[in-house]
Amino acid sequence: MNSFGQLFRVTIFGESHGESVGICVDGCPAGLPLNLEDFLPDLERRKGGTQKGTTPRKEDDLPIFKSGLFHQKSTGAPITIIFENNNTRSADYEKQRSVPRPGHADFVAHAKYGGFEDFRGGGHFSGRLTVALVAAGVIAKKLLKDIRVTASITEIGGEADPEKGLQKAIEAKDSVGGIVECRVSGLPVGLGEPFFDSVESLLSHAVFSIPAVRGIEFGTGFAAAKMFGLQHNDAIEDAAGKTRTNHAGGVVGGITNGNELVFRIAVKPTSSTPREQSTYSWESGLVEPFSVKGRHDLCIALRVPVVLEAVTALVLTDLLMREQHIKRVY
Amino acid sequence: MNSFGQLFRVTIFGESHGESVGICVDGCPAGLPLNLEDFLPDLERRKGGTQKGTTPRKEDDLPIFKSGLFHQKSTGAPITIIFENNNTRSADYEKQRSVPRPGHADFVAHAKYGGFEDFRGGGHFSGRLTVALVAAGVIAKKLLKDIRVTASITEIGGEADPEKGLQKAIEAKDSVGGIVECRVSGLPVGLGEPFFDSVESLLSHAVFSIPAVRGIEFGTGFAAAKMFGLQHNDAIEDAAGKTRTNHAGGVVGGITNGNELVFRIAVKPTSSTPREQSTYSWESGLVEPFSVKGRHDLCIALRVPVVLEAVTALVLTDLLMREQHIKRVY
Amino acid sequence: MNSFGQLFRVTIFGESHGESVGICVDGCPAGLPLNLEDFLPDLERRKGGTQKGTTPRKEDDLPIFKSGLFHQKSTGAPITIIFENNNTRSADYEKQRSVPRPGHADFVAHAKYGGFEDFRGGGHFSGRLTVALVAAGVIAKKLLKDIRVTASITEIGGEADPEKGLQKAIEAKDSVGGIVECRVSGLPVGLGEPFFDSVESLLSHAVFSIPAVRGIEFGTGFAAAKMFGLQHNDAIEDAAGKTRTNHAGGVVGGITNGNELVFRIAVKPTSSTPREQSTYSWESGLVEPFSVKGRHDLCIALRVPVVLEAVTALVLTDLLMREQHIKRVY
Amino acid sequence: MNSFGQLFRVTIFGESHGESVGICVDGCPAGLPLNLEDFLPDLERRKGGTQKGTTPRKEDDLPIFKSGLFHQKSTGAPITIIFENNNTRSADYEKQRSVPRPGHADFVAHAKYGGFEDFRGGGHFSGRLTVALVAAGVIAKKLLKDIRVTASITEIGGEADPEKGLQKAIEAKDSVGGIVECRVSGLPVGLGEPFFDSVESLLSHAVFSIPAVRGIEFGTGFAAAKMFGLQHNDAIEDAAGKTRTNHAGGVVGGITNGNELVFRIAVKPTSSTPREQSTYSWESGLVEPFSVKGRHDLCIALRVPVVLEAVTALVLTDLLMREQHIKRVY
Repeated sequence: MNSFGQLFRVTIFGESHGESVGICVDGCPAGLPLNLEDFLPDLERRKGGTQKGTTPRKEDDLPIFKSGLFHQKSTGAPITIIFENNNTRSADYEKQRSVPRPGHADFVAHAKYGGFEDFRGGGHFSGRLTVALVAAGVIAKKLLKDIRVTASITEIGGEADPEKGLQKAIEAKDSVGGIVECRVSGLPVGLGEPFFDSVESLLSHAVFSIPAVRGIEFGTGFAAAKMFGLQHNDAIEDAAGKTRTNHAGGVVGGITNGNELVFRIAVKPTSSTPREQSTYSWESGLVEPFSVKGRHDLCIALRVPVVLEAVTALVLTDLLMREQHIKRVY
Repeated sequence: MNSFGQLFRVTIFGESHGESVGICVDGCPAGLPLNLEDFLPDLERRKGGTQKGTTPRKEDDLPIFKSGLFHQKSTGAPITIIFENNNTRSADYEKQRSVPRPGHADFVAHAKYGGFEDFRGGGHFSGRLTVALVAAGVIAKKLLKDIRVTASITEIGGEADPEKGLQKAIEAKDSVGGIVECRVSGLPVGLGEPFFDSVESLLSHAVFSIPAVRGIEFGTGFAAAKMFGLQHNDAIEDAAGKTRTNHAGGVVGGITNGNELVFRIAVKPTSSTPREQSTYSWESGLVEPFSVKGRHDLCIALRVPVVLEAVTALVLTDLLMREQHIKRVY
Repeated sequence: MNSFGQLFRVTIFGESHGESVGICVDGCPAGLPLNLEDFLPDLERRKGGTQKGTTPRKEDDLPIFKSGLFHQKSTGAPITIIFENNNTRSADYEKQRSVPRPGHADFVAHAKYGGFEDFRGGGHFSGRLTVALVAAGVIAKKLLKDIRVTASITEIGGEADPEKGLQKAIEAKDSVGGIVECRVSGLPVGLGEPFFDSVESLLSHAVFSIPAVRGIEFGTGFAAAKMFGLQHNDAIEDAAGKTRTNHAGGVVGGITNGNELVFRIAVKPTSSTPREQSTYSWESGLVEPFSVKGRHDLCIALRVPVVLEAVTALVLTDLLMREQHIKRVY
Repeated sequence: MNSFGQLFRVTIFGESHGESVGICVDGCPAGLPLNLEDFLPDLERRKGGTQKGTTPRKEDDLPIFKSGLFHQKSTGAPITIIFENNNTRSADYEKQRSVPRPGHADFVAHAKYGGFEDFRGGGHFSGRLTVALVAAGVIAKKLLKDIRVTASITEIGGEADPEKGLQKAIEAKDSVGGIVECRVSGLPVGLGEPFFDSVESLLSHAVFSIPAVRGIEFGTGFAAAKMFGLQHNDAIEDAAGKTRTNHAGGVVGGITNGNELVFRIAVKPTSSTPREQSTYSWESGLVEPFSVKGRHDLCIALRVPVVLEAVTALVLTDLLMREQHIKRVY
């Protein structure tokens, strides 16, 4: 449900236009220094800032620490972080209530929760919740120390040059999708727990909780399906497990092999497109033309890298704890 | 670790060349009729039989029921099923011990378990364990009743015609990868549990426990990253949620929307290729030429569909139970 | 760790003298009406109010709803409730830092968290956190509808009349322990999940998270150890499972049998006694006389009943959901 | 359900008169030597042997290892151990089907599983399953090394001298209950995970899965409810946390404090008493006289100590792993 992780476990809550969104981080070892400043860079990256194609709502996104810190260090007790929702214009959404927006969770949420769901801005399904993931990711990254998690855009709208892909979207007056790649260096050999908690299993589990993700592939990924065995196999070159190539993307048999961890995710185009669409109306019972109000990101993929880093860091921290690479006391 | 599922939970165990492989299925409602005959068709499909490109070892693969059945019906207690390993030639593997085979888990298992792992034939990492998944899948499929889970090969070695792809491998005297697609019809709207237990999260978690899987995509998947929003959005056409197109593959916001569930996985080429490779030797400390002994599947993807159906059925059964669509008493 | 429950799951956080204490309730079905007024009676009961022997700190104990409610009804998303800590005088505790108080968690917390724990007023180990349990219990009780959970004091300081026991403590200028009994009527037959999730297992698990609890017994409990079989066995009298006696306390084989659920817990005397004690000092390295500052409850057992009801309601709600007695939509 | 533990996790299965009972132990570090001889002493203790008052059925109770061992050492993969049921006389039970035996799970199992349960000899609810717990306990005890877990009878039928209590039962031609005490020496300070996974919470959870247990108390336990604070508090005497008295039984704030862990459990009289009882008959719809067939233990408590040691060892191993006192490689 809304919790994830075994020894390092997060519980997420909140809605786009409710009181707040937040996260409770359980299992953080005591003694980790945590200041407001640690959180700001990643929170800023998530906003997309002045980046073309992102138009975040104007939220301060200041983390409010409700538990688990003492003298600006973790105490070993759960750390709860809340972000208040201030810049919400719910009235816009009350009007749109009659139409389940295509690509959004409106229809399924309504069916699942019998109409009691907070539908404003996607409610609990909103990308707004990723701000909480990013905050938890900051803690995880600090625990990872020399292990570096880096995600970046590799493709927008089919173009390797993101600016080009974005330009296409602007010209088409439409939203557009993209590819984000994540690389992790410095991992020890041996992370991942057979049979069901392989590195790929846990990472994909976490990754698909990020809204708009439609696919994930490790190493060579889908291209591996077209390859011969001799091409794909990575010859091991030394006692530390260094391989000549890295088609495996750093994971063999579900376990890290000491080479760089590499995986990519596909992000669909923002469901809220500026173009007119048509969809069923609960009010009229007919399929009707429909336009999304307000400003929205043309390309949600642009804001995904820091979120992807966060969930990756959460998973790796948990796996490192299970393998006892992270000690209880910092 | 070796358990998966919340209300319908499996625990898998065993090794390729140990005593047995098996699975314990917990949470099956009482009263489900289960006969040996229910298991044979899927177990046979997994063997690959006379299919070109698969050369399974000669195992009977007869499930032995150790608990949970009474008068050939489930009792509500855990159902344990064991498959004995008879056709094992461990001597072959003792010889190969000095070389961590490229693409296999030999190297990571050795590092993780300090040399105490059962290395014969991949041990606990072996594809042999999928026979236990298939058995559990048979139980899940019976619980799913009118919900149909069907997986099939859509591509081998880059060819839409599997025979052609396989022929390429035979000519190249090499192994080859493939794509398997899974479709599920008859699902109700509303399966999947925010925030972390989305349908994609749970399916991908289970799917990546199948050896050799390197990627997964839902609906349009990676192609969605190249699309515009208007193209990708599925217009809703009626009160039941039927959509004009199905780019979402039946899942929106992590929740089933009542349309066909569609996803694809990438399977890498069999790591044991007939071609000579080179790899590091623990014995000599050098990179040396290396050849795999014995007969192996040219294309492991050919045996994956029934395994993919099994893990898909496990996940969906669990989600249906969480949503109370499957009652306790059959 | 700080989460408990399977389908109805709570995550607790906070410290006695930190920002706040709170709880996140996951799995509450959508559509449950929840108003501030629903919470006040139980929160008031926990304070002990004007009761002799309890001297709660002056907190408003007003629940602040941070997520999961919309139009004063549950939405199906996690409900987060926070209580702010206003009436804290941490300075008192800074002084006492050099002495691990007997009976308190000071010593073990220091060892476990390397000195980084928030030690003020017991920190995360404080009875203060039970205010959050009570709030979650209010939600659970509403879901239980006609199932009535009632806990009451049956003994203080060895006296069946609580007033007498309390009077003894006042005269002795010492704190004192007590017994609390919980009774639940209206339960269906069949709750509890073999082998490890028996009703007694889950209730005792939850109950021992309440600070100061030292024992639990079901039905006749410890007295059963002195009985003969014929005496103890409850003869079944009708098809509904009504028994002539109820030595089993409503649970047989770990499963509810439809009779009243009855269990008792032992609560130790408040560790903070007005009497002078002696204990080891980290500062001097010597055993020294020691007195607790401030006002404390003479008998913490007096405030336990409503907390016991709360954890009991949490467990039963979860078990009812597992058996599908509570539907998703209210 | 039928799994317990986080990092060291067991899954139990089987029925009294089915094919077998067994257990799957997941999370055992690789490299632990395990021979048949390691298991025999505890398995023998559980049988009760020639002890007056126990009349176990004649089973060899030989563990059959189905997975997880290689060259008589653990491999890191799950260890599955099975005990076959040979000495079963099911015909006896088919006759008794019409009567839900008082004190047994017959009635609740029938209600819960709709009549599909394996009712023979208690089926999945039978004390027979404790043989599997004992086997898992042997593994846990080996991992605990210098930490000694010892349980013993302290009272039978209200008599401190077990022989006396048993004699009373023999004279009364009735079954009788008893008290078992468990002591653990050598534990480090700091085991137990706030808020919900206190040492008492996890131990009681596990302990109440043992059939016939009706109560548990730690340290002074229920007697603490009659004490004053000054009496009950254990004065700390040195930097290691040694206390003058041990009323806490080695657990303060849910965390081990380095002193001996002490707790007691109440075991009810064997439900199958030689005396004639009366109970409802499903067949006649009337309350009728009823006699238990066959030979049964007069005092089931006599066989509990080794089972109590086993579940205690399981819990402590898991907690030690969470605190990283047990390393992955032996």
